[in-house]
Amino acid sequence: MSKPLRLGIAGLGTVGCGLIRQLQTHPDLIAARAGRAIEIAAISARSRDKDRGLDLSAYEWEDDPVALAARADIDVFVELMGGSEGSAKAATEAAIAAGKDVVTANKALLAIHGQPLALAAEAAGKVIRFEAAVAGGIPVIKSLTEGLAGNQITRVMGVMNGTCNYILTRMESAGLPYAEVFEEARQLGYLEADPNLDVGGIDAGHKLALLAAIAFGAQVDFDAVELEGIGSITIEDIRQADDMGYKIKLLGVAQMTGRGLEQRMSPCLVPATSPLGQLQGGTNMVVLEGDAVGQIVLRGAGAGAGPTASAVAGDIIDIARGFRAPTFGQPATSLRKMRAARAAVPAPYYLRLTLQDKPGALAKVARALGESGISINRMRQYDHADVAAPVLIVTHKTTRAALDEAIAAFAETGVVMSDPVAIRIEAV
Amino acid sequence: MSKPLRLGIAGLGTVGCGLIRQLQTHPDLIAARAGRAIEIAAISARSRDKDRGLDLSAYEWEDDPVALAARADIDVFVELMGGSEGSAKAATEAAIAAGKDVVTANKALLAIHGQPLALAAEAAGKVIRFEAAVAGGIPVIKSLTEGLAGNQITRVMGVMNGTCNYILTRMESAGLPYAEVFEEARQLGYLEADPNLDVGGIDAGHKLALLAAIAFGAQVDFDAVELEGIGSITIEDIRQADDMGYKIKLLGVAQMTGRGLEQRMSPCLVPATSPLGQLQGGTNMVVLEGDAVGQIVLRGAGAGAGPTASAVAGDIIDIARGFRAPTFGQPATSLRKMRAARAAVPAPYYLRLTLQDKPGALAKVARALGESGISINRMRQYDHADVAAPVLIVTHKTTRAALDEAIAAFAETGVVMSDPVAIRIEAV
Repeated sequence: MSKPLRLGIAGLGTVGCGLIRQLQTHPDLIAARAGRAIEIAAISARSRDKDRGLDLSAYEWEDDPVALAARADIDVFVELMGGSEGSAKAATEAAIAAGKDVVTANKALLAIHGQPLALAAEAAGKVIRFEAAVAGGIPVIKSLTEGLAGNQITRVMGVMNGTCNYILTRMESAGLPYAEVFEEARQLGYLEADPNLDVGGIDAGHKLALLAAIAFGAQVDFDAVELEGIGSITIEDIRQADDMGYKIKLLGVAQMTGRGLEQRMSPCLVPATSPLGQLQGGTNMVVLEGDAVGQIVLRGAGAGAGPTASAVAGDIIDIARGFRAPTFGQPATSLRKMRAARAAVPAPYYLRLTLQDKPGALAKVARALGESGISINRMRQYDHADVAAPVLIVTHKTTRAALDEAIAAFAETGVVMSDPVAIRIEAV
Repeated sequence: MSKPLRLGIAGLGTVGCGLIRQLQTHPDLIAARAGRAIEIAAISARSRDKDRGLDLSAYEWEDDPVALAARADIDVFVELMGGSEGSAKAATEAAIAAGKDVVTANKALLAIHGQPLALAAEAAGKVIRFEAAVAGGIPVIKSLTEGLAGNQITRVMGVMNGTCNYILTRMESAGLPYAEVFEEARQLGYLEADPNLDVGGIDAGHKLALLAAIAFGAQVDFDAVELEGIGSITIEDIRQADDMGYKIKLLGVAQMTGRGLEQRMSPCLVPATSPLGQLQGGTNMVVLEGDAVGQIVLRGAGAGAGPTASAVAGDIIDIARGFRAPTFGQPATSLRKMRAARAAVPAPYYLRLTLQDKPGALAKVARALGESGISINRMRQYDHADVAAPVLIVTHKTTRAALDEAIAAFAETGVVMSDPVAIRIEAV
């Protein structure tokens, strides 16, 4: 085991440079822990000349990441380019074909192509590790795949997009509307080039799909994730939730139900006093529940050079130590294609409507709910100056299907003035 | 890798039975994840006839755990007896000598004999894994040894004795004095047979010593842990702390300083709004800080059959998968004997005194503090009916040594009526 482990690193953005810095800073510490030296053999990025504030002169350069992936002088291909298609996919496939282990931070790639990539790696006797793809520096993949491997996992939850949590908590603390805080986040550089990846829940949905695959022995299936972004959340929703002892979070939930695997990434109300409810700013939190372990909560930075590099380095050290486990925790050939269940587990819902202020309006809405079998836990109508009356309803436990039926029936009442906002209240 | 992994389990108490139940409940799930079946070959406990509510008829029985440890038909010796000496130690040594890997939940054994056991295992090419020894079901050893292996660890903290946290949070919520809640905890069966293991900080100190060894590449050294129990904490201290925005926790802190490795397990004030401050009841929390990852917080059940069995099962599955890392994360021969530094990092302190109610008393105390270079941040003297005046002082940052000097000088003032209580305010 004394032969060095040689890396080929593709992608020299924030994470790639963070990793190189970490490897350059602590070579002896890392070698002591890994049982062998870890060396960077070659690197690749779009621009060779860019000043990255790092001495890269000792490493071979490849313009083409696919060529890098197949180099004879590397053992592990470290993919830090991002994107589900193009170079990242081609180079990862090339690495496996060339007999390299792969470490990646690429959630989109694995959420979309994880199953064929895992099959290919397995057939080649190689491993793919991706701790950095989910919740940055938090060792959540490791905890789920290894630490909790003796458990039947019952539920996985998480706040896994720091930008969304920043926006929601900043709206509350500063009393600002969504559009204004969104713009603030954009100017601070917190948003992806396509902001919908963040606020639309796509990025966090990729992460949830990966956790669900491991937790439930499922073929990763991002298309089955029910996605709902935070764009319709108003400051009023946040205030009303707070009044009732809740916080609004973009929460991912994956659980196995009698009707299939439920995967949701959507705004939810969670108790203000719960660890999830108390989570402020850009921090991530993942909650893992198993039949033996009960509930485990993991909290930390979900992004940034250091935390992400920490996760990538952990994966590399595992490979150096000879830890070789299947990509999703069990052989890819044994992962099942799961039936998708949409919000099958009943829950109470928070419902915000705008009603025409005329006699009988509220009764019509209440009747529509009743006809879908939904009973009302609390209801408030606010003081209002014009003909539009804001109404807030908290239901008793119901299914999403029943709620959708009621919402469809609202249209026929002729008194509901805008699209109702429905937010699930999740028991955490 | 298709040959089953065969276990010999010594100790059939809460954890042993929990493990067997877990292995009996999910054999296929565990085999899929481990890559091979995990079988119980033989078991051992004090009493063979006791009804444990489990079918143990398929397993070979040994009266003597040392004989069990050396059986030819086991690959892994699972030590769940507890205790730092006697059978647990003898059987663990016998297992290593017989070429078995070891999984243990025994914090006392490893905190006291960890270094020679790790050396012996290493020489024999065997592994010792002990996730269950620290913070029950929380994968903290794994997170620190593997997930954060690319980091220089800067600090490790934790609330790792659920009984103490139960007592402290129950004192606060019910407004009851220590003695009463202690008695309550005893009747609920929360306390060890020797309660000082819990309330004296010894049990939690064992856990801290194990984390410190991994975090700082140190030879485990329980004797170097500065221990202070919760017995001197009054309901008044809890209330005063709360008034100032703090909670009192039995907090373990390990950090490397210029003067050596600091390991403390003692009551500390932590901000009420921090994750540690918000921790209620018997739950455990560990905070890991590294130069790349920043701060990671892990929370979960620290004890009980299920959580502890979950951790033991995770270790067994790792061994089944062929994960073989050194006991303390790097070769035992490379672990350094660290110099111990007592509370070397300056911090503010909370100080509670009882003064004789006579002119100049407060001035004498303030002068004693000043002469030790300690400045006062806030001071309160309470309304009181008799000659004993309760006084509360919060200092600016100071060293423990300066504070002890000042406290020694208090005796000479002739106005301090009882032993002062000093509680560190930890920045978390």
